[in-house]
Amino acid sequence: MIGPGDDAAVVRPTGRPLVLTTDALVEDVHFRSGWCDPAEIGARAALVNLSDLAAMAARPTEALLAVTAPPDVPAHQLESMIDGCAAALARYGAALVGGNLSAGPVLTLTLTLIGELDGPPLRRDTARAGDRLLVSGTLGDAGAALSFLLRDRPPPTALLERWRAPTPRLELAQALARAQVRAGLDLSDGLASDARQLCRASGVGARIRVAALPLSEALRSAVASDAERLRFATGGGEDYELLIAVAPELVATIEEIGRAAGCPVCEIGEIVAGADVALIGADGAALAAAAGFDHFHPRVGQ
Amino acid sequence: MIGPGDDAAVVRPTGRPLVLTTDALVEDVHFRSGWCDPAEIGARAALVNLSDLAAMAARPTEALLAVTAPPDVPAHQLESMIDGCAAALARYGAALVGGNLSAGPVLTLTLTLIGELDGPPLRRDTARAGDRLLVSGTLGDAGAALSFLLRDRPPPTALLERWRAPTPRLELAQALARAQVRAGLDLSDGLASDARQLCRASGVGARIRVAALPLSEALRSAVASDAERLRFATGGGEDYELLIAVAPELVATIEEIGRAAGCPVCEIGEIVAGADVALIGADGAALAAAAGFDHFHPRVGQ
Repeated sequence: MIGPGDDAAVVRPTGRPLVLTTDALVEDVHFRSGWCDPAEIGARAALVNLSDLAAMAARPTEALLAVTAPPDVPAHQLESMIDGCAAALARYGAALVGGNLSAGPVLTLTLTLIGELDGPPLRRDTARAGDRLLVSGTLGDAGAALSFLLRDRPPPTALLERWRAPTPRLELAQALARAQVRAGLDLSDGLASDARQLCRASGVGARIRVAALPLSEALRSAVASDAERLRFATGGGEDYELLIAVAPELVATIEEIGRAAGCPVCEIGEIVAGADVALIGADGAALAAAAGFDHFHPRVGQ
Repeated sequence: MIGPGDDAAVVRPTGRPLVLTTDALVEDVHFRSGWCDPAEIGARAALVNLSDLAAMAARPTEALLAVTAPPDVPAHQLESMIDGCAAALARYGAALVGGNLSAGPVLTLTLTLIGELDGPPLRRDTARAGDRLLVSGTLGDAGAALSFLLRDRPPPTALLERWRAPTPRLELAQALARAQVRAGLDLSDGLASDARQLCRASGVGARIRVAALPLSEALRSAVASDAERLRFATGGGEDYELLIAVAPELVATIEEIGRAAGCPVCEIGEIVAGADVALIGADGAALAAAAGFDHFHPRVGQ
């Protein structure tokens, strides 16, 4: 109804529940400028925020972008960044309706996304003991790419793209919510940490089978060590895949929904009573934290 | 419906148009840590953003706060900041429903506010030649306070409070919009700059009478020079008062609304054809830019 240029944007109401989320990308904390061009930074801000809406099974509608930038960042770079953000949002149906530009010591993009619920939300506090735990796509690719970048080595393209332009699982999440998935969230910090979040919110524990974790061919060929692969898959973070808890009788339906959406969803474990989140090796015993299930997350900053 | 703790907040729809705005407060750009305590910084982030909703005649409903902070900021300070922000929002009817905390080189608070329109919006692109120009409250207090702070001198309390805790004119703006004020915005950059914004958006010019500008007793007693007072009143910025354009026959009604709201609204000039925004002295001639109508805004940063 009123777009950028006035004191605030005005948008038409639809009568559906609103979903609201905000997230910041900070230079030298979340990325380094040499790793992506301005348009890619803008797009990444959109994609990681869209994943939070996917994690609620929401459909994105509008966004606001607040940028702080040092005075020496050229205007055309800021424009590329904003254009890259707007283009990525548009691909998923959201309009950039406003924002703010301010001076600051490092480039920071704070995106706020507004979405709507067409069906039930995907909550994180509703998993139950006996549910199966499933994950979409593959794990560890983005974390492995980041470990290359941090060592100033070029990552294999397939891994780099998983870090640079993650795919928010928006349509898949909506289909899963319609199919009455019990609970879910998106994997931003890494499977270990995020599984604990899901379990803490729901008051349950989990057992996750190492051998069941879906790994990409790109990860298998780029990382030779089993232990390293496990570290990336459980702690690498920034996969932006969905982790969901599902009643056992629904697993086959959910797997079929994944196939239909072109994004495999596979079973990796189960929800149990208690509060422990354990990683189970091939021999059926829980792995020690040192074997890869501690909170490991590569840090961009110092 | 779902508050902080999940991937995103979910709020119940009301069917009214939504108003969306975002703004950042950056340490050493917009404030220095010695000037306000953490709770006051949080409150200020809320108040200046609420003013943008006032500028649309919207009623605030929800907010999201993204904070980036250096790792050495103690947790209790961050909590005070967030509490201060939430308390200021609550005073004006808005709930802090979510947010994000991230590392960053300086303290930065990026607040996104969501509001609703109960009546017509207050646009900035609808002023017409012949309209009268009115302003709420008094001008220059915050700019004068800032000039004291920048010289490491304690400002008089009345001026400091105008800078530290501006009053968003939310109810006044809604009453004005219902009374069919033609156009308006809030004064964040200073009367000179913001009057140009209003005129540019509406394709008109303006004449503003120096002698009519409302100045507080606190400003008159703290700043002896007429020229300095004029600089603060026209260019000091951060007044967060409303500047409105009104059909001439409505001026008396609007002034009455101001009196009823406990916030005087007074006529300071008129909208004219053309694109010039001129400041008119007591002799009826336009003042030169050097006399105080250039874009003057004290900078917190270097």
